Amino acid sequence: METVDTTERLRQLRGLMKQQKVDIYIVPSEDAHSSEYIAPTDARRAFISGFTGSAGTAVITQEKAALATDGRYFNQASKQLNSNWELLKQGLQDVPTWQEWTVDQAAPGDDTPGSTVGVDPTTITAPEGRKLSEKIKKKGGKELVAVSDNMVDWVWGKQKPARPNEPAKVLGLEYAGKKYQEKVEELRKELDKKKAAGFVVSMLDEIAWLFNLRGSDIPYNPVFFSYAVVTPTTVTLYIDESKLKEEAKAHLEGVTIRPYHDIFSDIAALVKEQPVSNGTRDASSKPKRKYLIATKASWALSQALGGEENVDEVRSLIGDAKAVKNSTELEGMRQCHIRDGAALIEYFAWLEDQLITQKTTLDEVQGADKLESIRSKHDHFVGLSFDTISSTGANAAVIHYSPERGNCSTIDPKQIYLCDSGAQYLDGTTDTTRTLHFGEPTEMERESYTLVLKGHIALDLAVFPKGTSGFALDTLARQHLWAHGLEYRHGTGHGVGSYLNVHEGPIGIGTRIQYSEVPLSVGNVISNEPGYYEDGKFGIRIENIVMVKEVETKYKFGEKPYLGFEHVTMVPMCRKLIDVGMLSSVEREWLNAYHKEVLEKTKKFFERDERSRVWVERECAAY
Amino acid sequence: METVDTTERLRQLRGLMKQQKVDIYIVPSEDAHSSEYIAPTDARRAFISGFTGSAGTAVITQEKAALATDGRYFNQASKQLNSNWELLKQGLQDVPTWQEWTVDQAAPGDDTPGSTVGVDPTTITAPEGRKLSEKIKKKGGKELVAVSDNMVDWVWGKQKPARPNEPAKVLGLEYAGKKYQEKVEELRKELDKKKAAGFVVSMLDEIAWLFNLRGSDIPYNPVFFSYAVVTPTTVTLYIDESKLKEEAKAHLEGVTIRPYHDIFSDIAALVKEQPVSNGTRDASSKPKRKYLIATKASWALSQALGGEENVDEVRSLIGDAKAVKNSTELEGMRQCHIRDGAALIEYFAWLEDQLITQKTTLDEVQGADKLESIRSKHDHFVGLSFDTISSTGANAAVIHYSPERGNCSTIDPKQIYLCDSGAQYLDGTTDTTRTLHFGEPTEMERESYTLVLKGHIALDLAVFPKGTSGFALDTLARQHLWAHGLEYRHGTGHGVGSYLNVHEGPIGIGTRIQYSEVPLSVGNVISNEPGYYEDGKFGIRIENIVMVKEVETKYKFGEKPYLGFEHVTMVPMCRKLIDVGMLSSVEREWLNAYHKEVLEKTKKFFERDERSRVWVERECAAY
Repeated sequence: METVDTTERLRQLRGLMKQQKVDIYIVPSEDAHSSEYIAPTDARRAFISGFTGSAGTAVITQEKAALATDGRYFNQASKQLNSNWELLKQGLQDVPTWQEWTVDQAAPGDDTPGSTVGVDPTTITAPEGRKLSEKIKKKGGKELVAVSDNMVDWVWGKQKPARPNEPAKVLGLEYAGKKYQEKVEELRKELDKKKAAGFVVSMLDEIAWLFNLRGSDIPYNPVFFSYAVVTPTTVTLYIDESKLKEEAKAHLEGVTIRPYHDIFSDIAALVKEQPVSNGTRDASSKPKRKYLIATKASWALSQALGGEENVDEVRSLIGDAKAVKNSTELEGMRQCHIRDGAALIEYFAWLEDQLITQKTTLDEVQGADKLESIRSKHDHFVGLSFDTISSTGANAAVIHYSPERGNCSTIDPKQIYLCDSGAQYLDGTTDTTRTLHFGEPTEMERESYTLVLKGHIALDLAVFPKGTSGFALDTLARQHLWAHGLEYRHGTGHGVGSYLNVHEGPIGIGTRIQYSEVPLSVGNVISNEPGYYEDGKFGIRIENIVMVKEVETKYKFGEKPYLGFEHVTMVPMCRKLIDVGMLSSVEREWLNAYHKEVLEKTKKFFERDERSRVWVERECAAY
Repeated sequence: METVDTTERLRQLRGLMKQQKVDIYIVPSEDAHSSEYIAPTDARRAFISGFTGSAGTAVITQEKAALATDGRYFNQASKQLNSNWELLKQGLQDVPTWQEWTVDQAAPGDDTPGSTVGVDPTTITAPEGRKLSEKIKKKGGKELVAVSDNMVDWVWGKQKPARPNEPAKVLGLEYAGKKYQEKVEELRKELDKKKAAGFVVSMLDEIAWLFNLRGSDIPYNPVFFSYAVVTPTTVTLYIDESKLKEEAKAHLEGVTIRPYHDIFSDIAALVKEQPVSNGTRDASSKPKRKYLIATKASWALSQALGGEENVDEVRSLIGDAKAVKNSTELEGMRQCHIRDGAALIEYFAWLEDQLITQKTTLDEVQGADKLESIRSKHDHFVGLSFDTISSTGANAAVIHYSPERGNCSTIDPKQIYLCDSGAQYLDGTTDTTRTLHFGEPTEMERESYTLVLKGHIALDLAVFPKGTSGFALDTLARQHLWAHGLEYRHGTGHGVGSYLNVHEGPIGIGTRIQYSEVPLSVGNVISNEPGYYEDGKFGIRIENIVMVKEVETKYKFGEKPYLGFEHVTMVPMCRKLIDVGMLSSVEREWLNAYHKEVLEKTKKFFERDERSRVWVERECAAY
């Protein structure tokens, strides 16, 4: 991690800003699709500031430059930013948010005239753009203007990586479980219910899901750059045509293919064709139907459709549909997690052998590499679903830790080892965390591991009526830690895609208020991952993927279904870290049943692998 | 419950509507203070419609009249409404809300011109008024107008009961625990933090709390009709001066007393004195401070202050302060619950004796009357805190059941008996529910009672970090019922006043989203009342009042306090209804400790009451 000299970049950018009459320029870290991971070509904020963390916003004026990021990245940012930059530590008291900082710059008060703020409208969402625009005006700034040509791209010039142009490949029905035509028809039914003119699809994983196509334009996420528009009579995919080979073109019969960037002019024309009323009643003409976009769609899309008044921003209809997996996807999830579990078991058995028996010195990345090579031997393996968190001792307490190749810690067999990893398979996406100890854990390590495990089991065993949200279930995973005065500062569960993004909405288990708005439904796939982190010492997380299913209950009050979870992750818990005396009889029974299932489902992989077989049998022995 | 002939009332009202050029008139059930219980003089909706339930809204046009109410009152409303009325069953599919019905009437479409809708602006809140106004305009209706003179009052004429004029009495510092001057100073600090010009206090219990005064203008609620305005330099109480005797006047030294109805003209004048800016920056003058009102304040107050742009609607500052009881109030809560517990024990012992030994026939109201007479003998008793729910068998399944004098069921000793009751004492407010059986409960009754008890215990034992809301804890009370496919359709806990309203905000335990916005704090007093209801058969509810306290935990992650509950209700659980085999060892320990505490704290009341002593000792015996 080196400091980057951004002086020349900033000088050029400021020159452009003057030409464009923009006093303040905002550079968010998002791409045009609100992707969680971005392609190198979209890493504009990293280019202009030098700071390469995943989250942060740069704001540049003629005199100043500020970079805002959150607690995960304070260290990294202060190393990477040179003296041109002011670091806004988001979340600390008395530190302005980047929006506040921007507004303060735009409206300095006294007799100074207000400033014009510019942003590439594809890089912020419509609600964000609107909110910021209002604040700027309210405080006496001039306005927020949408600058279509990204000014950082101009500065970046020829050095800027090309937009990836990997092919979008057809995902067979044996994996997708439903034809894209059916998905389109179901979407149209939703459009009709909502009396909408159409849905403009902006999230890359939603487009991949809708068309049963997968790409590789973004690391770890099998998506491809595109937009789509679905109306009651048309389906249009905006994509660089060279990404579509013969098979994909044949598969997309009936879909109009248009160039990626034409989305903006096309939807602007669509809206003009069908003028949208402002809602007032008129005896001669009924109010026209509006187009829908997701709340995470860009400001640029909203503007192309005629702005706030003419568009309805909704929780994505496709996001909702995609979160309910069909039976093929659910079975794929089961199968890929068995293979993935076998890979993790093989890796942990190897690691223990290396560290304890062979006394080999291994660093965290060497561990991660070995795990990847084991995974890659398995059927349907495509790649990893995120950067493996392979962390020893105190590193495990850094929740978003990622070991740096050639510059990471040696795995200490006397410390806790936390491994959070996952892969993309044609039949599903995996995400598993196990925390291990190869030596003698401390009392506190065993105690907190067991409390995390109790929370994990409580959530796994939860039964709840249809309509219950992940917000309401979160406490079940925390209750035992709380009783000991312990807590973890992250959510308990995120939705998981089917051979798609490892994090997907709209469901989640945690205290984010939006989780309270989305009930868990049969077919949802979500993680169960409570943890505990002792700064500078150790970290614990236990993560399984679970699927929401209907469960049998003795009674059935209100004639509505009662739901529960089916776990698909098949990796034993860590025997050395469990204080079995702290488990209730119900919890012990759960653990024994789980281990029995893990053993049964994975043992076929170890018929000729003595080391793994011995390891998994030992770890899965009944209490 | 008889049908009321509203023909003449409606004829007169419609005549007035024509005079006032109002096409549609809305009659909500609220008084000018958003009170949960109202005085007879404010029962305008009941007068005009004939329907006397606690919740509902009447909407009258020249041709039609509609009464909207919820599931609790469908039966009662259909009995009481005559053929002039259409019943809008709120919550049923395809039934419009009263707002939708109103908008449909106001904007019939085609070539019909839109209508003017009128409402007394003191009877709806500002956000409600605004929302309805927007909907009416959007759909093509004319507008919502505030009609200051209530038209139902005109029709009611001399028959209308007078506004109660009971004295407001001083509550001694030995009960209130903090001088009103201190409360005003603390409020001023909050005003300063919020940079506000002042707070207009509209809720009656907030005014009673702020000034350490108690009244009796509304049944069960020790409040008095009034408004108040607190600014950085003034305190004004708007009240009919005849309600203030010498002692109260002396107590209110430094408070300006003004007539009740003058609030509107006074605050309008206040705002004119200090013109409120629209927030734009101006080199010559800083933005002026705005007045605050609670989100539950009336549209009339908001309008008097200059409307939405000039007022900040907030969660009431006093509501927040009032919910955190001081140590005197907490000790009062403990003490009054011991006396109240003794009263309930004496009543239950008497009831069992009457029903089983004496074989007396008693109806539900006779039971409630006996309980009131026992309570009234206790120190500091003032009155009941709500209408006693004394319900036998299937009546117990009606969550808001209230037995009608002379027309209620006989208490059946072979059925479940549910008693939800409470009282006002000078040192606190009580609210307790116990479910009993005097004969042989069914297996299902014992099972569901025990599941409710397990949920009650789980919540009582909960430990949670500071910052946790009642929304997050709700699931703990439901989890055991859910596991059996059972559920209850009401919240788990409500805030309780200190010799004030038995229901108070802003805290609560339940699935209402606003509960997620208010963390539980040390000093909060709240109910813990899970239940289960089998329609037509039986009902179960177990309710204790608990106080939020800081608890010792083994660790203390994040250096923040961990909180838990102290229960103050002292009445045994029902032995016959507990299936002790379903309890975990932790739950059994809790139950034994609770019963031991009940016995110790209440036994002094039974030194010369053999029947109660024997009963409570039997019920509290250790398992």
